[in-house]
Amino acid sequence: MVVQREFDVHTRARGTVEITADVAGIVRDAGIGVGVVNVFVRHSSCSVVLTENADPAVRRDLETLAARWAPDGDPAYRHDEEGDDDMAAHGRAILAGATLTVPVADGRMRLGTWQGLYLWEHRTMAHRRRVVVTVLG
Amino acid sequence: MVVQREFDVHTRARGTVEITADVAGIVRDAGIGVGVVNVFVRHSSCSVVLTENADPAVRRDLETLAARWAPDGDPAYRHDEEGDDDMAAHGRAILAGATLTVPVADGRMRLGTWQGLYLWEHRTMAHRRRVVVTVLG
Amino acid sequence: MVVQREFDVHTRARGTVEITADVAGIVRDAGIGVGVVNVFVRHSSCSVVLTENADPAVRRDLETLAARWAPDGDPAYRHDEEGDDDMAAHGRAILAGATLTVPVADGRMRLGTWQGLYLWEHRTMAHRRRVVVTVLG
Repeated sequence: MVVQREFDVHTRARGTVEITADVAGIVRDAGIGVGVVNVFVRHSSCSVVLTENADPAVRRDLETLAARWAPDGDPAYRHDEEGDDDMAAHGRAILAGATLTVPVADGRMRLGTWQGLYLWEHRTMAHRRRVVVTVLG
Repeated sequence: MVVQREFDVHTRARGTVEITADVAGIVRDAGIGVGVVNVFVRHSSCSVVLTENADPAVRRDLETLAARWAPDGDPAYRHDEEGDDDMAAHGRAILAGATLTVPVADGRMRLGTWQGLYLWEHRTMAHRRRVVVTVLG
Repeated sequence: MVVQREFDVHTRARGTVEITADVAGIVRDAGIGVGVVNVFVRHSSCSVVLTENADPAVRRDLETLAARWAPDGDPAYRHDEEGDDDMAAHGRAILAGATLTVPVADGRMRLGTWQGLYLWEHRTMAHRRRVVVTVLG
């Protein structure tokens, strides 16, 4: 059995937006007891990630690290049509990924207590991001 | 058809623990000929990874690289309640991931000869880590 | 319903080879309306990635970044039997991944307009790489 839904996330700037409840709602409505759910973004400059959901400082520190992994405005970049954050965003997206799969048990995501699902905007400006959620079981 | 099982890995310290045989056993017992298996850790400070399974030096060198990707005790971190390795572990987990999916054929994982499945503990202390394995086919 | 196919990619050197059309063809032939497709490489020194498909400079810049993430011939590496690019390739493969899952809708991958699927060769020499594609729905 397969249920697929899509929704938009309106990001305001670089940073994370929690989508755990959005995905949990789709999983619950799907009525699938055991299986998996895939969460996918249709973009190459944002990510979906699993990370610690208690202390917001974790996500701020992830920004600090990401700014080293793929710096904005690096003089070595040749792709910079859309600004200093353009290529940095593609680099960050390779590292953090655009797709992830979470197990489902008893009709709910089998996340750990401290795991949250986040859309991570890598561009500095606001964007509309499309998320595709597919529940299989 | 879906089969889901869970097991614990008791890590001793930062480093990798091979779980290829554990997952292979679950796949075999599932009796699913063709499909996929998802392996997931319910934590934000350890990973599941696929890497070279022949020379242990590869995994030691991955530690060397990871210590650069997300250094312990970096003065820029604001999240450090649990010690110098706390935020470093979350950063490493973003890069290496908490979930991966492997194809199944003839009732076995379709791994390459030199591919092994590892739980990678990113914290420096011992932990009990919960792994969720879901076979679909 | 599950359909699984495999194909080889003959890489010429370090760099990306687009495989979007190959995977799209397998998805189309599978005749699965809604579901997911998993793309997997049976190797620990190359990756499958989703990235920007319009400007080739993006993939060149990803090489620039990857050369910092896991430098060739780093004196700290202990695993170097196959040359300066050996351990670097394993490090890059951890970061970029060997497996990814894309949603399928109306019998087609639900990729964004600017998303392409690439096999990323991390070794400097030509290799034959085996790709396993599994469509579930």
